[in-house]
Amino acid sequence: MSDKPAPPADVPTTAAASEDGGDAAGPSKKALKKAEAKAKKEAEKARRAAEHQANQAAAKAAAGNTEDLAKDNYGDVTPLIKVGADRVHLRDVGDEHLGKKLKLRAWIQNSRMQGAKMAFVELREERNWAIQGVVAASADGKPVSKQMVKWIGGLNLESFVLLEGTVEKPLEPVKSVRVSNYEFHITKCYLVAPGPEVLGMGLVVANKAVTNFDDEEAPQEAVEQAAKGVEAVSLDNVPSASMATHLSNPAMHKRSPVQQAIADVRMMTRKLFADYLDARGFNQFEPPCLIGAASEGGANVFMLPYFEKTACLAQSPQFYKQIEIAGGRKRVYCIGPVFRAENSNTPRHMTEFTGLDIEMEIEESYHEVRDMLEGVLLHIFRGLSEKCAEQIAIVRSVYASEEFLLPDPGKEVRLTFAEGQALLRAEGPEEFRQVSDDEDMSTPQEKALGAIIRRKYRTDFYVLDKFPEGARPFYALEDPEDNKITNSYDFFIRGQEVLSGGQRIHTPSLLEERIRKKGIDPTSPGIKEYVDVFRSAGVPPHGGGGIGLDRVVAWYLNLPSVHLASYYPRTPKRLMP
Amino acid sequence: MSDKPAPPADVPTTAAASEDGGDAAGPSKKALKKAEAKAKKEAEKARRAAEHQANQAAAKAAAGNTEDLAKDNYGDVTPLIKVGADRVHLRDVGDEHLGKKLKLRAWIQNSRMQGAKMAFVELREERNWAIQGVVAASADGKPVSKQMVKWIGGLNLESFVLLEGTVEKPLEPVKSVRVSNYEFHITKCYLVAPGPEVLGMGLVVANKAVTNFDDEEAPQEAVEQAAKGVEAVSLDNVPSASMATHLSNPAMHKRSPVQQAIADVRMMTRKLFADYLDARGFNQFEPPCLIGAASEGGANVFMLPYFEKTACLAQSPQFYKQIEIAGGRKRVYCIGPVFRAENSNTPRHMTEFTGLDIEMEIEESYHEVRDMLEGVLLHIFRGLSEKCAEQIAIVRSVYASEEFLLPDPGKEVRLTFAEGQALLRAEGPEEFRQVSDDEDMSTPQEKALGAIIRRKYRTDFYVLDKFPEGARPFYALEDPEDNKITNSYDFFIRGQEVLSGGQRIHTPSLLEERIRKKGIDPTSPGIKEYVDVFRSAGVPPHGGGGIGLDRVVAWYLNLPSVHLASYYPRTPKRLMP
Repeated sequence: MSDKPAPPADVPTTAAASEDGGDAAGPSKKALKKAEAKAKKEAEKARRAAEHQANQAAAKAAAGNTEDLAKDNYGDVTPLIKVGADRVHLRDVGDEHLGKKLKLRAWIQNSRMQGAKMAFVELREERNWAIQGVVAASADGKPVSKQMVKWIGGLNLESFVLLEGTVEKPLEPVKSVRVSNYEFHITKCYLVAPGPEVLGMGLVVANKAVTNFDDEEAPQEAVEQAAKGVEAVSLDNVPSASMATHLSNPAMHKRSPVQQAIADVRMMTRKLFADYLDARGFNQFEPPCLIGAASEGGANVFMLPYFEKTACLAQSPQFYKQIEIAGGRKRVYCIGPVFRAENSNTPRHMTEFTGLDIEMEIEESYHEVRDMLEGVLLHIFRGLSEKCAEQIAIVRSVYASEEFLLPDPGKEVRLTFAEGQALLRAEGPEEFRQVSDDEDMSTPQEKALGAIIRRKYRTDFYVLDKFPEGARPFYALEDPEDNKITNSYDFFIRGQEVLSGGQRIHTPSLLEERIRKKGIDPTSPGIKEYVDVFRSAGVPPHGGGGIGLDRVVAWYLNLPSVHLASYYPRTPKRLMP
Repeated sequence: MSDKPAPPADVPTTAAASEDGGDAAGPSKKALKKAEAKAKKEAEKARRAAEHQANQAAAKAAAGNTEDLAKDNYGDVTPLIKVGADRVHLRDVGDEHLGKKLKLRAWIQNSRMQGAKMAFVELREERNWAIQGVVAASADGKPVSKQMVKWIGGLNLESFVLLEGTVEKPLEPVKSVRVSNYEFHITKCYLVAPGPEVLGMGLVVANKAVTNFDDEEAPQEAVEQAAKGVEAVSLDNVPSASMATHLSNPAMHKRSPVQQAIADVRMMTRKLFADYLDARGFNQFEPPCLIGAASEGGANVFMLPYFEKTACLAQSPQFYKQIEIAGGRKRVYCIGPVFRAENSNTPRHMTEFTGLDIEMEIEESYHEVRDMLEGVLLHIFRGLSEKCAEQIAIVRSVYASEEFLLPDPGKEVRLTFAEGQALLRAEGPEEFRQVSDDEDMSTPQEKALGAIIRRKYRTDFYVLDKFPEGARPFYALEDPEDNKITNSYDFFIRGQEVLSGGQRIHTPSLLEERIRKKGIDPTSPGIKEYVDVFRSAGVPPHGGGGIGLDRVVAWYLNLPSVHLASYYPRTPKRLMP
């Protein structure tokens, strides 16, 4: 039951070879290596499939030849089969379970026959919680027969099984699995859901670092690694797969401990964000995705036919956060999808991502908002290192990262934009010695400044305040004392921006004035409705900020791409699964 | 600073009159009434605007004539004005504040002059927390002058002000505001954000029941009520506005205590849902909105150009919940937007709404899932009545509702679909005496059954299990013992469906078989990728359900429309604000 027809192991055409940078007169070395690797991989797949089939056939033949006294103790599950023993979870296994008859549900993540009478199967219950299962035929064929051993040993990898057995001590610790001090001696085994004859991507590969993010057919680096390593594939020396391979095998991608750990960190980030704000009187709300007009300019907006009209997909909840403040909700936050129709195929971009947004009334200074945002991010980072220590360690074992440095309480690093630029000019690389205080920073400038700040202040988290007027949108309030700068800030982790925010204009006359200054028509669709809200009732001073959840997770964990931090990354080339 | 030009008070044309059902030879009575009401409303608006302008002019003139010794104690706020006194919140006001100088920020929700030397202003800090503000000129003009009193008395309603004053005991309780046992004696007042000269919708109207949901120009019922009531408008006798009026005045719509109470109930529902599941080992996850193909059939799907492809907006997270289970996440939930391109203009429909979805592995019976869903909804209903008692009372004061009846623990009402139909045949209205066990119920049938069950079992919450095969989608598992029915259920509150769920097919062969049985091509886009997931690795048995958040809130509170439960309702006619 292979899930995919094997792709033909054809030699690349001349055109393809050219794309690989080879000689146009014939296939390049790279292309040849790639083809060779592909052919070897196919051959290996075919060999494994044949082996499995042979095992299963042998088991069936054996079952036909002699009476199988264990025949009720294994086989395909039917709706009526239940196992009466107590349920055990691998996280909880201890000496108190020794010798007891227990029930377990697990995936078979590895198996090998030891002669004809014994098989070892690695049983994974969740994430990286696996135990060695042992099934050995008894002399009298009860409760385990030779046929049963063969059948179990021949089950496809990643099959899901229902088991009965006893927990025993192994002769020595089983290093290949996490529950290394116990074994599970199988007495019953039913196949609940079969795995495929050949896995599209095995768990070991799924848990390796993804090194190729070009979501195209050719995962070049992975292929080259595979070409080198294919003769000596072992658990520790398996080539990594490309992001494309991962996303074409979503079940296996998600079964990998590293992806489960990333998912846990992501959800804990959301939860810590919400908890901190809930405790400070914030009201969560839900902005719409479908909107009548592009609220922030109009570039990079997805548009769709909407009955007799056209709708846009929201690029940010900015407008709606401010309506909530105008509506008297005092302090609000929202967590939800936002969309950008940007044709950027980089590890920093997606077309759909999750925003963590807040907006709040200002009593006296917009630094109230900056401090709230700083507080919530520090709460997240401190909370993650406490509550997700195990997950962070799993991720780090696959994607190396330096310790994430935080400032001591009361020593938060807040520079003005101009101070940041001065640092870059003074201590940055040669090419940034001329940066201006009036222009926004580029990504390389941000990274260079991040390195200087890490060295100087021993922190990976800091704030740049007072951004130049030209770098901020029409709703940003200019500093009342200096209209070249605004009451706004960006937050950075590991030298990359994760948050942008500031004080907004709250009076309609000033708002309209600045909209005009930005060259926008204040009566244009979307803008008019926006200004009307401020005309319709007095709106208190307010400010806020938006955090990109995908970026916070990716850069906190030092992942090579935001695509790894997302559940279902959406890029210009990918809408599936 | 009026936010909208006054619409011309023109007499309807013959065509418009015809639409109103009148005589084509001349304007109908309805149309005449409507025009009359409109004209009166405009006149009233103009009168109020003139009054405000006169007041302000008088204040300015007065200020010019005599020296104003209080001139630093009021006026437009500048960035530098701060009030040094301690901040007070109206929720906390008590005897300990009496006589103290305090700072308050509030909206002026009502005001009246008492002679030339005194004014009363209702100061609202949040939701329905308002206090009577008193400003009286002193004989020596300090700290309050006559000019200052006039200026404050002339401020537009819904202006946002920064105040200094003392808390005092009134001579008798002030019935018009919630903080009735105290007054705020104003010594300073700065205008932070001005309200409009004429409000598009006043707070009193905003807090009345919405009775007209036709999102068209003519809110007929409201106009008629206005026509009757316009001569004697009082706080207790104000006509309601239509949904269209509300949504055209989002700030005032949201400032109404009833809408704030609904928002609180909605967010508490989300929170109770998440808390219950978090405590039971569920993992939250985020399904995408942008998908490559319509996962559930293809009708009512929004489509959009996506670079060189076409994308769809997700109608449900069904496919993605199941991938998470296939990916070994055991128990998952998600909270997010889903989309239906259905041209239905009813109080039950929106094009974008919020789904609360769960999916979990099944160990032995799909009733594990049913019980989990029942548990989470009971937790929500019990939690709401405890944590949102005040909000529910506010909503009930505007939208009447009977007490929401819940079954006693252990006495949950779970009928099979067939038992429900039998009840309808036996005890339902005449027209439902012939209902069949094989066909899905209509909305009127559901409501009739809800009434019977309320009478019989004293509950507004119940489960119908074992829906007929024909009423369920291709992924629903048939009952292994009777393929005319499925392992699936709907949940109802007040006779209306709020949840649909059941066990899903988890083996690829059975899934493909049922897809064909439903007349769908298993190799069609979206479907193939769905089945491939089950082919790619063994997937445990699982089930789940999806709750419509908008409907739960609307029907729990007995609101006349789901549009009132939504932050920004999206209908075929409305994409703004």
